[in-house]
Amino acid sequence: MSAQPADPTCPVARTVDIVGDKWSLLIIRDAFDGIRRFNQFQRDLGIARNILAARLRDLVHAGILRVENATGGSAYQEYVLTDKGEDLFDLIVSLRQWGQAHAFAPGEPHSVLIDATTGEPVPRLSYTTPDGGRIQARQARVRKVGEP
Amino acid sequence: MSAQPADPTCPVARTVDIVGDKWSLLIIRDAFDGIRRFNQFQRDLGIARNILAARLRDLVHAGILRVENATGGSAYQEYVLTDKGEDLFDLIVSLRQWGQAHAFAPGEPHSVLIDATTGEPVPRLSYTTPDGGRIQARQARVRKVGEP
Repeated sequence: MSAQPADPTCPVARTVDIVGDKWSLLIIRDAFDGIRRFNQFQRDLGIARNILAARLRDLVHAGILRVENATGGSAYQEYVLTDKGEDLFDLIVSLRQWGQAHAFAPGEPHSVLIDATTGEPVPRLSYTTPDGGRIQARQARVRKVGEP
Repeated sequence: MSAQPADPTCPVARTVDIVGDKWSLLIIRDAFDGIRRFNQFQRDLGIARNILAARLRDLVHAGILRVENATGGSAYQEYVLTDKGEDLFDLIVSLRQWGQAHAFAPGEPHSVLIDATTGEPVPRLSYTTPDGGRIQARQARVRKVGEP
């Protein structure tokens, strides 16, 4: 698992090297859900404490989480998403939307993303360009570094 | 790494259980880039053959890739994204966009997503709802199963 992906110019590979791990992704999900303390993460994920400590340290090192002293004067430290971490929202949404569409049996209960301002479920989101266009896999290709 | 995430009703956790692994994500990226054969994946990723074989088998089992006989009568088998696999395009795009924004130094070369119909780079994509609205992390929350 420690090998460097072959192409160092690929943004997908760079991101995967930083967050492409089950526990890192679930910690980031939990952070978006408002979880902040080590023991809360530990209880929610059922993860071994040493693994959790290592993943939190890596996410802080990567600039995705930052450590804050808890509000209210308690001795606890809290882990909070940085702006760079908040920018992973689309990634968590895309994981969520694919799971909703493909990983549950019909009628099987699952959690739902809610618009906090209206209380209504967020409808299926899709990627659009700044001019409102949509992009599909079949119409996209990757231009490698050095290609014309 | 084999523990089940605590909440089986979370779509993020379901998806992460299926594709939340560095090699699986890079194999899916390669499949979108048109790579189809075992030896092509192996060469592109620099991955051990036994690990590649296991990941490909898991992705076929999950219904994300399917096995086809190669066109042109060759004896090779090819791995092709199913419709369910194609629906991971947003996930790969979100990994790519975050990497472009946060994982390269200014001016550092990286590959670019191209609109195949125009040859132009795809602009930064953002998630919009069907009525054209945007959703931000701060305005979203998750309603768990059983909550009113």
